[in-house]
Amino acid sequence: MRKLTPFAAILAAMMPFAGQAQEKVDAAMMQKIRQEGLENSKVMEIAFNLTDKSGNRLTASPGFMRAANYAKKTLEGWGVKNATIDPWGEFGKGWELEKSYVALTAPYYKPLPAYVKAWTAGTKGLKSAEIVLVKPLKDSTSIEAYRGQLKNKLIIMEPAVMPVYNISFKADARRYEETELQKMADEKPVTPGAGGRPGGGRFGNFNQDSVRAAQRALVLFKEMAIKDGAVGILSNGTARSHDGTVFAQGGGVYKKGDPENILDIVLGIEDFNTILRLTKAGAPVKLDVDVKTKFQTQDLTGYNVIAEIPGTDPALKDEVVMLGAHLDSWQTATGATDNASGSSVMMEAMRILKTLGVQPRRTIRIALWSGEEQGLLGSRGYVKKTFADPATMTTTPAHEKFSSYFNIDNGTGKIRGIYLQGNEQCRDIFQAWLAPFNDLGAKTVTISNTGGTDHQSFDAVGLPGFQFIQDPIEYDSRNHHSNMDVYDHLIEADLKQISTIVAAFVYNAAQRDQKLPRKEMPKPRTQTGF
Amino acid sequence: MRKLTPFAAILAAMMPFAGQAQEKVDAAMMQKIRQEGLENSKVMEIAFNLTDKSGNRLTASPGFMRAANYAKKTLEGWGVKNATIDPWGEFGKGWELEKSYVALTAPYYKPLPAYVKAWTAGTKGLKSAEIVLVKPLKDSTSIEAYRGQLKNKLIIMEPAVMPVYNISFKADARRYEETELQKMADEKPVTPGAGGRPGGGRFGNFNQDSVRAAQRALVLFKEMAIKDGAVGILSNGTARSHDGTVFAQGGGVYKKGDPENILDIVLGIEDFNTILRLTKAGAPVKLDVDVKTKFQTQDLTGYNVIAEIPGTDPALKDEVVMLGAHLDSWQTATGATDNASGSSVMMEAMRILKTLGVQPRRTIRIALWSGEEQGLLGSRGYVKKTFADPATMTTTPAHEKFSSYFNIDNGTGKIRGIYLQGNEQCRDIFQAWLAPFNDLGAKTVTISNTGGTDHQSFDAVGLPGFQFIQDPIEYDSRNHHSNMDVYDHLIEADLKQISTIVAAFVYNAAQRDQKLPRKEMPKPRTQTGF
Repeated sequence: MRKLTPFAAILAAMMPFAGQAQEKVDAAMMQKIRQEGLENSKVMEIAFNLTDKSGNRLTASPGFMRAANYAKKTLEGWGVKNATIDPWGEFGKGWELEKSYVALTAPYYKPLPAYVKAWTAGTKGLKSAEIVLVKPLKDSTSIEAYRGQLKNKLIIMEPAVMPVYNISFKADARRYEETELQKMADEKPVTPGAGGRPGGGRFGNFNQDSVRAAQRALVLFKEMAIKDGAVGILSNGTARSHDGTVFAQGGGVYKKGDPENILDIVLGIEDFNTILRLTKAGAPVKLDVDVKTKFQTQDLTGYNVIAEIPGTDPALKDEVVMLGAHLDSWQTATGATDNASGSSVMMEAMRILKTLGVQPRRTIRIALWSGEEQGLLGSRGYVKKTFADPATMTTTPAHEKFSSYFNIDNGTGKIRGIYLQGNEQCRDIFQAWLAPFNDLGAKTVTISNTGGTDHQSFDAVGLPGFQFIQDPIEYDSRNHHSNMDVYDHLIEADLKQISTIVAAFVYNAAQRDQKLPRKEMPKPRTQTGF
Repeated sequence: MRKLTPFAAILAAMMPFAGQAQEKVDAAMMQKIRQEGLENSKVMEIAFNLTDKSGNRLTASPGFMRAANYAKKTLEGWGVKNATIDPWGEFGKGWELEKSYVALTAPYYKPLPAYVKAWTAGTKGLKSAEIVLVKPLKDSTSIEAYRGQLKNKLIIMEPAVMPVYNISFKADARRYEETELQKMADEKPVTPGAGGRPGGGRFGNFNQDSVRAAQRALVLFKEMAIKDGAVGILSNGTARSHDGTVFAQGGGVYKKGDPENILDIVLGIEDFNTILRLTKAGAPVKLDVDVKTKFQTQDLTGYNVIAEIPGTDPALKDEVVMLGAHLDSWQTATGATDNASGSSVMMEAMRILKTLGVQPRRTIRIALWSGEEQGLLGSRGYVKKTFADPATMTTTPAHEKFSSYFNIDNGTGKIRGIYLQGNEQCRDIFQAWLAPFNDLGAKTVTISNTGGTDHQSFDAVGLPGFQFIQDPIEYDSRNHHSNMDVYDHLIEADLKQISTIVAAFVYNAAQRDQKLPRKEMPKPRTQTGF
């Protein structure tokens, strides 16, 4: 391993790049890829296997392993080499739901669609529970009012204001308008030469003292609730949980040695508000709850699926082009758009290339990650062990031999272009690569970063990692971490288009004379305090 | 009772009507009604009691009776007189759900939001069932292939084509555009002088022989399935059942002496399609089902809630103005927009008038109907016993004394105007009545009929019965007969506007010198073969 000095990094960033104006594209091969991808697609069959057949793919769950084994076997079946279920480090406990029954029993009977947060405990049989409303907890003293009051109760952390159902006067689904795409294309780099550190994106910033005190109080409250024999917590998920679409994720810690989290059940806003209104009105509210969950602690390792089409050019075959997507999902559905769609199109891109008998100059490697939903863990683990440690920026020889990584993780919408992730040197290259697919709606190259997924793990160590621009469709409104992220919400035509364009990009990256140009090497995390 | 001859009917229709050009409106009273209705509204409190607190209000169910008793007591509390839970004839059996648990257990565990059709039987405990796909039944011989194959099975009547989930590129909710309203206003009578018989609307026409053969085969198949010990049927409701919104209604007959219907469970299109795809792919699909239902056969009578503000003008107090809405709902939700909204605004209109101390010239009578969802049964029963038999057009003296009936049953959207139901003579009157509320968006008078609800029961016997034009909001897309027809889908501002305008219309009808003009008396059903 060698350590890249900041000086060398600056030099690398300043290196001239050649041939972009006349970036060569093999038009005949593009046509073949297009035909195979659009006419003979298997992408929906792959998606069916990853969703309906596997079930949810929470990292380290049986569903994830079913999908991983299917992917490995299927890739092998197509003749893709070196397929492996590859450990990337310690993830933590597996978890799955074995039973979930939730119903209102007073003032009348009504079964409630309810979604158990991952890594929470069960009820140990059927419990009949009344509601206790808990006022917002400010600090550790504010929990005392509830000590001794929680036995056999379902807890509602009373929201400061009643959650509001918003009537949908705007369509759930949309595609990008031309004007929006043009605006993206016109964007200028915000921080020229920046290392593209992951930031912003989906993850908020909660560092204020009062927030920390409230968070600490909540932890203590939950511990007390478990000790005092509460049945669990009733949550309303997010304000997006409406019309029967319910968003639910994890219910707490899952690492080796962590305690089981208190049962936490998410209802849609309508049922949650009904229970809240009835309770506040003094009506006799009761629920039956019977939840059984199972923790898997035999194997705490996290796994990615890796496989490759080996390079054939003696001078370039040790160099690597990667394509990938995360295979893991949340637990309430089968993660069709987050991210069976990405995993399916990546597998399909490999199938297209194998079917066409491509003998790439560079090695083409697919990665289907796990632990993305818990913080890009699988890709970070893989990058760290394979290319560089972002804490020190100590690199391996493979770092030098790496061309680029292409990611899909924004739902089922077709490709409209690609984010440069601050790497202006790739603009003309990608513009040329998109040209054969402009008629399919893909033409925009933007300097922007996009956050929250696995290309960031590459970008964070100075490797060219890219994510495509995709039409939003109903990703945020209906799919993303909801019970409605299921097969039927996939759009077949769009997934075919994505597979085709990804296969073309990967092919082009594998065949071009140079690796893709890089941005400046980021500073070690130890120096930036990140 | 007297029989109106066709000749007399023609005379009645030709009677001159006076004063429409200068229809008088008491502007000061309109202002008072507006202030009370918009500023001091109780409509959401009423709606909360009819929905969250009562539960579903399937006719003859405990939830309906809770709501009916609340309505009677509340009206009495406001000083409304002669409040009664009024029998209108024999309805049939009551029904309620006592338990419903449905989950996929193979190839993996997943709890399924599932909705049991009304008047179907339970499972007699927890059953684990595999799927049997049944091809479309053409006639009674096509059921033989399944004889002996149904024990402990869940039946899917295989659709001819896979149900399609349609991504929502159009908003669920909308309001009428000005151009649409203008188009309604410009409509011309299609059948001038027609009696306004109920027709079209929600109820289709299934008279072809092949359809009848298939329907008969289905009845025989269900009888066989019960006898052979099938667990039940899995249905996908309608194509609108998506995103967690599931539409479900009745599962068959409910009259005295009718057999229990086979259990019929409705899933959303996503879960239904998943099970269908897995089954077709040969995957080992299993479900746990535990459903308990309860039939009520003690009291087969149907009831409406009736109450009134007695008239005070010696010459007119025996004449009646009615306002009403159906109180009954389907069983999967609390019928907030179908039709707690209508019932709430009608009660609120009565509250407004009582609060203002109105001493009406004519009697103002509210009716909250039952059995609307099974064919306008409550209002038809009431009209038949009170005013006229539509089969013979034999009328009672009350028929002559009747002014008009105003109905609300199109969801939570505010009033944009009123349907004349073919009665052109009322155009100028209603235009004048709407004038004080034009600024609230209500100004359109259309000659059109609108079908499918209780004003038709009046219209059918030659009595002026009207329904208002309401903004559609998300009535068809999310609410109408779905699990999402719940309190949070109500729009408070719209319900206040409706209550206000209805109170004003009823007041005007009660005070004007003449009853509202009538259309020609319809011919007896016995003569038309209807």
